[in-house]
Amino acid sequence: MIKMSTINYPNGARPYHESKNLDNHSGRGATLEKDINASNTYYKDLNIALIYKKPTPIQVVKVDYPRRDRAKIVEAYYRTPSTTDYNGIYKEKYIDFEAKETKNKSRLPLQMIHAHQIKHLELVHLHGGIGFFIIRFSYYNKTYLVDAPLLIQKIKKTTSYAIDYDWFEKNGHLIPEGLYPRLNYLKVVEALYFKEEK
Amino acid sequence: MIKMSTINYPNGARPYHESKNLDNHSGRGATLEKDINASNTYYKDLNIALIYKKPTPIQVVKVDYPRRDRAKIVEAYYRTPSTTDYNGIYKEKYIDFEAKETKNKSRLPLQMIHAHQIKHLELVHLHGGIGFFIIRFSYYNKTYLVDAPLLIQKIKKTTSYAIDYDWFEKNGHLIPEGLYPRLNYLKVVEALYFKEEK
Repeated sequence: MIKMSTINYPNGARPYHESKNLDNHSGRGATLEKDINASNTYYKDLNIALIYKKPTPIQVVKVDYPRRDRAKIVEAYYRTPSTTDYNGIYKEKYIDFEAKETKNKSRLPLQMIHAHQIKHLELVHLHGGIGFFIIRFSYYNKTYLVDAPLLIQKIKKTTSYAIDYDWFEKNGHLIPEGLYPRLNYLKVVEALYFKEEK
Repeated sequence: MIKMSTINYPNGARPYHESKNLDNHSGRGATLEKDINASNTYYKDLNIALIYKKPTPIQVVKVDYPRRDRAKIVEAYYRTPSTTDYNGIYKEKYIDFEAKETKNKSRLPLQMIHAHQIKHLELVHLHGGIGFFIIRFSYYNKTYLVDAPLLIQKIKKTTSYAIDYDWFEKNGHLIPEGLYPRLNYLKVVEALYFKEEK
């Protein structure tokens, strides 16, 4: 007998019902985040790149000291980040990106991309860094890398509240998935931003 | 009559007694951190560089929802960071540094520099980024920028638990202070890492 809840899906694919979406912070995008973090650990361990997820900014209001050596935070609130979630270095280049995961079958709701993320990625581009979005359509289990300036231009031009899945198929780059690394997004980065150096 | 507590000191200098050192997180280095953050805001506003302090990593254990729209964290703990405090981009280059402030008159206690920070800055160097330490001796109100590989080499060679102030005077680079930016550390970065491009 097969217990459905313990099946290991190939290529990191996960059944829809396992996704959690408790609130803005604990659930949304957690699967994609896990895959990216695992890939970053792989890249770091093999000295390929040094890319980290930034901690979620939290405003600490009250701290208790039940034990002298350990501070216990008893009142705190999530703050809105002013940058993107990930940054680091790959082949001497500054890398910066935001990752979004949607269950929507046909489009990416634009409310998922915040003004401060757009502003930040525009500045990354201005200073000569490599900026992009990693967008996962979890229904299809497909994850695309999209150049930040390209997606930002599209967002600024559109009058819709969402961008069609088709657009990502056409303008994004499908990220190869596997075991190590789970999401080989640097392969796309290599092809997209380093090709002239080959 | 002059009220001592309201004097504005020139060049961002602050009297010793104003320093706070409540615990590892809320107090230590807060003055230097404030100066660096203000400088980074200045650099960002003038499109000189894009450098941010990473949020302090916090492990959230329990969240309440007193109101539907706002999560209140009621149990959480500080976690040990795996990287340095600051990173970003300046003139297409990846920048990464750690800042430390000591009240010690004659040396920097090495317990202030953690193994994960050394490891991280070694990797930054390996991947071709610019890594350094910003060290403030608050007694003298002097702040030095020291190349990360140089200080790491010194730390690995020394048998002492501290590095003398003299060493920083000789091997570090005094960071010019002012009103805008408060700590012009990119001036030192420019001279130290970009001079061959002039």
